[in-house]
Amino acid sequence: MSRPVTLFTGQWADLTLDELARKASEWGFDGLELACWGDHFEVDKALEDDSYVQGRWDILNRYDLKCFAISTHLVGQCVCDPVDARHRSILPARIWGEGDPEKVRQRAAEEVGNTARAARQFGVDIVNGFTGSSVWHKLYFFPPTGQAEIDEGYRDFAERWRPIMDVFADEDVGFGLEVHPTEIAYDIYTAQRALEAMDHHRSFGFNFDPSHFIHQFIDPVEFINAFPDRIYHVHVKDSRVQLTGRNSILSSHLDFGDPRRGWDFVSPGRGDVEWDPIIRALNRIGYDGPLSVEWEDSGMDRDWGAPEALEMIRGLDFTASSVAFDAAFARRAQ
Amino acid sequence: MSRPVTLFTGQWADLTLDELARKASEWGFDGLELACWGDHFEVDKALEDDSYVQGRWDILNRYDLKCFAISTHLVGQCVCDPVDARHRSILPARIWGEGDPEKVRQRAAEEVGNTARAARQFGVDIVNGFTGSSVWHKLYFFPPTGQAEIDEGYRDFAERWRPIMDVFADEDVGFGLEVHPTEIAYDIYTAQRALEAMDHHRSFGFNFDPSHFIHQFIDPVEFINAFPDRIYHVHVKDSRVQLTGRNSILSSHLDFGDPRRGWDFVSPGRGDVEWDPIIRALNRIGYDGPLSVEWEDSGMDRDWGAPEALEMIRGLDFTASSVAFDAAFARRAQ
Amino acid sequence: MSRPVTLFTGQWADLTLDELARKASEWGFDGLELACWGDHFEVDKALEDDSYVQGRWDILNRYDLKCFAISTHLVGQCVCDPVDARHRSILPARIWGEGDPEKVRQRAAEEVGNTARAARQFGVDIVNGFTGSSVWHKLYFFPPTGQAEIDEGYRDFAERWRPIMDVFADEDVGFGLEVHPTEIAYDIYTAQRALEAMDHHRSFGFNFDPSHFIHQFIDPVEFINAFPDRIYHVHVKDSRVQLTGRNSILSSHLDFGDPRRGWDFVSPGRGDVEWDPIIRALNRIGYDGPLSVEWEDSGMDRDWGAPEALEMIRGLDFTASSVAFDAAFARRAQ
Amino acid sequence: MSRPVTLFTGQWADLTLDELARKASEWGFDGLELACWGDHFEVDKALEDDSYVQGRWDILNRYDLKCFAISTHLVGQCVCDPVDARHRSILPARIWGEGDPEKVRQRAAEEVGNTARAARQFGVDIVNGFTGSSVWHKLYFFPPTGQAEIDEGYRDFAERWRPIMDVFADEDVGFGLEVHPTEIAYDIYTAQRALEAMDHHRSFGFNFDPSHFIHQFIDPVEFINAFPDRIYHVHVKDSRVQLTGRNSILSSHLDFGDPRRGWDFVSPGRGDVEWDPIIRALNRIGYDGPLSVEWEDSGMDRDWGAPEALEMIRGLDFTASSVAFDAAFARRAQ
Amino acid sequence: MSRPVTLFTGQWADLTLDELARKASEWGFDGLELACWGDHFEVDKALEDDSYVQGRWDILNRYDLKCFAISTHLVGQCVCDPVDARHRSILPARIWGEGDPEKVRQRAAEEVGNTARAARQFGVDIVNGFTGSSVWHKLYFFPPTGQAEIDEGYRDFAERWRPIMDVFADEDVGFGLEVHPTEIAYDIYTAQRALEAMDHHRSFGFNFDPSHFIHQFIDPVEFINAFPDRIYHVHVKDSRVQLTGRNSILSSHLDFGDPRRGWDFVSPGRGDVEWDPIIRALNRIGYDGPLSVEWEDSGMDRDWGAPEALEMIRGLDFTASSVAFDAAFARRAQ
Amino acid sequence: MSRPVTLFTGQWADLTLDELARKASEWGFDGLELACWGDHFEVDKALEDDSYVQGRWDILNRYDLKCFAISTHLVGQCVCDPVDARHRSILPARIWGEGDPEKVRQRAAEEVGNTARAARQFGVDIVNGFTGSSVWHKLYFFPPTGQAEIDEGYRDFAERWRPIMDVFADEDVGFGLEVHPTEIAYDIYTAQRALEAMDHHRSFGFNFDPSHFIHQFIDPVEFINAFPDRIYHVHVKDSRVQLTGRNSILSSHLDFGDPRRGWDFVSPGRGDVEWDPIIRALNRIGYDGPLSVEWEDSGMDRDWGAPEALEMIRGLDFTASSVAFDAAFARRAQ
Repeated sequence: MSRPVTLFTGQWADLTLDELARKASEWGFDGLELACWGDHFEVDKALEDDSYVQGRWDILNRYDLKCFAISTHLVGQCVCDPVDARHRSILPARIWGEGDPEKVRQRAAEEVGNTARAARQFGVDIVNGFTGSSVWHKLYFFPPTGQAEIDEGYRDFAERWRPIMDVFADEDVGFGLEVHPTEIAYDIYTAQRALEAMDHHRSFGFNFDPSHFIHQFIDPVEFINAFPDRIYHVHVKDSRVQLTGRNSILSSHLDFGDPRRGWDFVSPGRGDVEWDPIIRALNRIGYDGPLSVEWEDSGMDRDWGAPEALEMIRGLDFTASSVAFDAAFARRAQ
Repeated sequence: MSRPVTLFTGQWADLTLDELARKASEWGFDGLELACWGDHFEVDKALEDDSYVQGRWDILNRYDLKCFAISTHLVGQCVCDPVDARHRSILPARIWGEGDPEKVRQRAAEEVGNTARAARQFGVDIVNGFTGSSVWHKLYFFPPTGQAEIDEGYRDFAERWRPIMDVFADEDVGFGLEVHPTEIAYDIYTAQRALEAMDHHRSFGFNFDPSHFIHQFIDPVEFINAFPDRIYHVHVKDSRVQLTGRNSILSSHLDFGDPRRGWDFVSPGRGDVEWDPIIRALNRIGYDGPLSVEWEDSGMDRDWGAPEALEMIRGLDFTASSVAFDAAFARRAQ
Repeated sequence: MSRPVTLFTGQWADLTLDELARKASEWGFDGLELACWGDHFEVDKALEDDSYVQGRWDILNRYDLKCFAISTHLVGQCVCDPVDARHRSILPARIWGEGDPEKVRQRAAEEVGNTARAARQFGVDIVNGFTGSSVWHKLYFFPPTGQAEIDEGYRDFAERWRPIMDVFADEDVGFGLEVHPTEIAYDIYTAQRALEAMDHHRSFGFNFDPSHFIHQFIDPVEFINAFPDRIYHVHVKDSRVQLTGRNSILSSHLDFGDPRRGWDFVSPGRGDVEWDPIIRALNRIGYDGPLSVEWEDSGMDRDWGAPEALEMIRGLDFTASSVAFDAAFARRAQ
Repeated sequence: MSRPVTLFTGQWADLTLDELARKASEWGFDGLELACWGDHFEVDKALEDDSYVQGRWDILNRYDLKCFAISTHLVGQCVCDPVDARHRSILPARIWGEGDPEKVRQRAAEEVGNTARAARQFGVDIVNGFTGSSVWHKLYFFPPTGQAEIDEGYRDFAERWRPIMDVFADEDVGFGLEVHPTEIAYDIYTAQRALEAMDHHRSFGFNFDPSHFIHQFIDPVEFINAFPDRIYHVHVKDSRVQLTGRNSILSSHLDFGDPRRGWDFVSPGRGDVEWDPIIRALNRIGYDGPLSVEWEDSGMDRDWGAPEALEMIRGLDFTASSVAFDAAFARRAQ
Repeated sequence: MSRPVTLFTGQWADLTLDELARKASEWGFDGLELACWGDHFEVDKALEDDSYVQGRWDILNRYDLKCFAISTHLVGQCVCDPVDARHRSILPARIWGEGDPEKVRQRAAEEVGNTARAARQFGVDIVNGFTGSSVWHKLYFFPPTGQAEIDEGYRDFAERWRPIMDVFADEDVGFGLEVHPTEIAYDIYTAQRALEAMDHHRSFGFNFDPSHFIHQFIDPVEFINAFPDRIYHVHVKDSRVQLTGRNSILSSHLDFGDPRRGWDFVSPGRGDVEWDPIIRALNRIGYDGPLSVEWEDSGMDRDWGAPEALEMIRGLDFTASSVAFDAAFARRAQ
Repeated sequence: MSRPVTLFTGQWADLTLDELARKASEWGFDGLELACWGDHFEVDKALEDDSYVQGRWDILNRYDLKCFAISTHLVGQCVCDPVDARHRSILPARIWGEGDPEKVRQRAAEEVGNTARAARQFGVDIVNGFTGSSVWHKLYFFPPTGQAEIDEGYRDFAERWRPIMDVFADEDVGFGLEVHPTEIAYDIYTAQRALEAMDHHRSFGFNFDPSHFIHQFIDPVEFINAFPDRIYHVHVKDSRVQLTGRNSILSSHLDFGDPRRGWDFVSPGRGDVEWDPIIRALNRIGYDGPLSVEWEDSGMDRDWGAPEALEMIRGLDFTASSVAFDAAFARRAQ
């Protein structure tokens, strides 16, 4: 469908938007998906100051770049998580505040709602992000963990996110949860459970990112088949399983990039994601939004990798068949 | 080596020791590995009352059963864990007390030390168990988690367990950590890290249980090869990977026994553990302790399964070659 | 659940019922599933002559055998099939008659209805069989074949079988279609389509036979999961894929038993069917009918194979877990 | 060998030859393989009217395109098939006539002979096509099917095709049967049987198309190895097995392009065909004819796919080694 | 076919024949395959002394054991090998003599001929053994090795073995070369070459031993299919591939039993040999000789393993189908 | 790291250096790795005649090519090998001399030392090559072969190569043994043994060539991980396993290029080597030497293949990540 290919700015937060926009434009990207951290897109400024939004567009326009979505992974993560010291490092001071877990969660929830308002202001329809989860860390069910406790986690999620989604609905902005371990939904069954907890709120959908399914051994196409009307956005990111019989799929508390891990993120096209069937599935469901490269590979220079990923996905984003074959014999002859 | 085959009593805590001993004896087990919960083996009574220990032996002797190890998984788990409501359900009231996390951890630590004393009293050399972990739940490294935080987890482990291991050394009892997700060591690399944190304390070894490696995709034999002198005890338990492309190896917050899980425990011999290479590895390292059946299978009647597991492992526990082949031509002729 | 294990008599039609019953009894089978061909169970006699039915029971009782189902694969096949010379060889003369295809189909349909009446007479609740199909042979879609033609096949099936199923309902007998290539349903999607064509008629269910799924590369458990309330009967039969890179899964017009085929039936337990997960699935859906060995293996003496198959399935037909674990720590402790 | 790459026009019958030739030329194809349907190559006109043939060449020459083969899949199919309504849709009215099956078969046979005459007229040496089969639809051997019936199918084939092949011999034109399910030969063993039925008639060879072997699980190279002197033409077409454990390799009466099918055709280079070993095998047997792209992919725009397929096969059609290494040490030194 | 199961005595040469015969008889073997080394069967004594042969039978008869074959692997090896110090350890002094390579080879050749004479004397029809090879050690083709050199190796083989085979023919004894790396034939293609070099001498066949094919990745059934009339004897021996990504299939100059090897021999039934298809293939070709257990497993006590192997192969040696199914519908009904 | 890509000249010894340099330069190579055979680099001339070395550089400079290593595979092979007729074909007459094996070995040893002197003269730091082995041909351990014999082989190696390595140390030149079957080291364990035999002499390292590991089923990355400080040079060469169930991984005494072999060398990028993980491993250990294409493929024209291989490896030789991520949230955000 010749979808636009954008670059997600989250992994480039050390660069100014102007620097990054110049690079992305030279490499041939069609646009950017702006992270709501670093200086790329600041929600508070967007709501306070009309000229801020225009300033962002000025930069994008200077490099002939589009924008279809902004992303709030870090703040979103704090809405449901049991907050600990690690969360401080991913939050602006105004949200961390005194660090009281419940207050942090509430301020994060308010900020995500504001992000929808800022998106509307900015003129984009999609906010991607994380939700956090109060039960993720109980995943292994020891000490014995019952469904009552898990149900409580989904209830907590719904209580915190339903009001947020109502703001999204008011602004006519969709939220794309990036389905991912550590989140309320990390696979097909938990995504189902999250949707049910939300009574299938129309603002709540998914940012489809196949890289998080690979090391769970889920076929990404099955996710698209399961939720054809909830694919609100698509990330192009890749992961590789690198099991040796001595290492663990749980990755042994080792850093990304450590070769002893059981899996790792790699530059799109170099991992185990099979992109052709994904493009076919996206064509089938009629997804016509951007393909947004989220580039992460601890073993490769990002300036080498990002343009390679762009070329890879452009070469795969083929159009579905549209010719009307008139006669049966033409349609299938041998 | 014709090792004794014992039955671990943890999954039978609803039966009295007498009832269970009768069954196990009829099935043909050589002995029991007593769980320190239910009424099977009570540490406090063993230390308080000399007749308690004799009473346990009376039951065992009545059914001609041996005992080589007792096990303290539940209390052990609480030594390092961030304690929450779930821990209450696995602890005796005297250890849970007022439920203050740090106090619970300290009482648990004291109890594990006492368990070594009780083992000595009872006349067994091995206590198996869990350690808990203050960092297990951070396994996915998001929010970003650094090695400093993980190092802190291993430091905490060492500080809590080194004094316990000193008690074990005094009593000449070995501790067999069952390497297992949720514990300080759950694979080869984390077991290495735990050993190093403990300065290779001679009392600290492993209860080798291959079932926990299967769904991590670790070859159990590699674990034995990595720690040949630390295999203090062996569990015969099995696990099966049942991936379909739609489910997750992380198992979607689903109960054991739910067919949608990505893996599950199954009766020994029916899972993915390959026992023949394990027996060869145990023969190589000269392990001559018991093979202890830890029977768990949510889809099978345990009274059907336990004798089947016994028969399976007896049929595999072959002796290593001991014949001295005198001449080359006899040793390898075709 | 300790289900009864029966032997399906279809592959032993050269023996008298008495001879076969004696063998089956000696081998330890619990009963027979009588084929409605050879002299094992004759529908016309059963309906005409009250003493016939008693005579069959006399033989069975003599050898202490039960009967839970009778089977009408051959006549059933002719209800929907485009009838050709091959059908003559599988039909009694009274049904073949003059051989006019449409009249053969109608007489076959009437006979299947009568089979339900005879089953009731005989005192069994299940008739297994085939349906035939007017569209099976168009499976490869060349010359180009449209869904309209396939729809027509399912309509034809429904028109012929709905009246038959009404007879079954009147007699309170269930029909178990053995899902199988050459039939209206041969996999999960076509079984779905057949059920829909029949408006989910309550008499219409399936005789689950995993051997027919193996060489289609369908996981038999998925079939059970898809139709948990329609598993009316179960066949124990096995198949093996024996691809070499030079032969075809379509088997090259070669006879069963020819080693060049891409797959073949083999004695139960020696093929690619994994029985343990099937037993678990049957336990889950609460199937408590017989496990009926349909023995077919062109490379093995059937007198060797049948008792081996019986032993195999008996060793696997374990009971589901029924113990109520009182406390969480007992349920899942390590 | 730098073989010419042509485009088979069968899937483009809705375009005039001129339109298609322009496209193919722009994309860089070396020539076209003309289908004898649509308006691309009409056998009757070629035989009746000398200027017709020249007119075809005029179009080809205008776009600098070559032609090495014409193809008669649709008419050929009707020579042996049990003719039904589907065949009407693939035949010109003059061959369908009154639709009497035997007469249709005879008229089709005559037309195929004429196709050789037209090919000679047109100046090409190869006619590709199908043969049909009177026994294909009996492939599953139920109702029980004996070798006598299959033998009869091959006899019928030989009787109908031997006279046709004699015409081909007279015209010095080779016939390339595209080995394919629904044809008299669909794998290695049936190709062998077909050759034997034809007494290895020198005009009868194969149009090698690996896509039809993939979902039969045949290694295409084995076909070339089996019939090195009968590879008369080569199609570049691809297929992908997409089994999930729930779908069937027999594809459930589902349309091409339906994602639930067990396999499907995909654009060359995107399927399971491994082209490098095929090129090596073609180099070994000295095949120097065209590589003809038969483009079919229900999920991709053909105008995107055809040039991609061309580029893929050009990048693979490498030359065999021709250097004469003088000395052993040069030939293989490390 | 209920073939006799024998035990090959080669790996038990440290026991007297009487000791071994007693064991084998107690375990239930039907007979022994006597090695022509150790004291089990001495060729020179058999030819010199009539009572020697009777004495061997006396021992066998005492334990009710049969004998169908004797084996001369060690002497046979020296017929074609480039003789070095290792050969001294496998030869009797009378054959090693002064150790001149060519003279050793000639004496070994003479001895193999005598072995046929002794076999006839003893009343058995088969001598199994090795041939050695003058070119095996050149297998990797570096330094560059041409077909001329390899041809020379097969010529040498034929020159040395044809006269020996003539002796065998005179005695009406068959020679069964155990196809094995280090021999003139070690796989299908080299077996073909060896047969051709021998002009398919009728005395020259194979002792089929699947264990030697496993780590070459050859399907043992393909060997039987390739040489159906040359399977003169069968060994029941097993091998396991144990590759880890760090070790080599060439096994790194490591001893048998070293766990770092890429493959190793294991007790029959515990390796990668699939015995069921082998029994089917032997049934197809009508092989009715013994199944001779050649027991070798460096990690298992042989007294444990030999009876287990016997039980394994007895449980698999099923009879082929012999029932004549009268009617098609009986033969294949569902 | 943008390493230089060179072409190893060994397989082009039929061309003059000038001819080859011109080709390599046109294709875009950065340099050549000169073989010390053919006329590419002659050690004796280099040592005798100062202008020879300059003349070589003149040619290289003319085509703007660099040189980082010279290679002495053929002479090196003769240092430890049991010398036979094949060695004559790979040696200059002055080293073969009268052909006395021991004298040949000594002259070869001297020549390798001289090669280090010539390399220094020429200004390169690395000499690649083979070592030969007195025990390689005993790899299968039949006739029975003990560790004493193998130890003797490593001792022989050390005695012959330690003095050579001392010359290398004097010249400050490293020797890169190409680990390869037929050499003293052919996998990880034998490389370890060779290093130990040499007391880890600092001049002795490895020319890493993954193609030789593929058909041994060794993961090439494991070799790099095992010897991170001994990777002195890297070859880009590829191999493909092509097992069919009928052929052998030992390749049946068949020539390279024969399609019946179990494996064969193929043009880099077309085999089973996975290059991406190798580049990552080389980045990790900080290897910054050349990637030297050793082109060998019996089925492809080398003039087609060499530039393709160059393009393949250039497209993969990516730089490691060097950006310093300042903040955790930038480092890993989703």
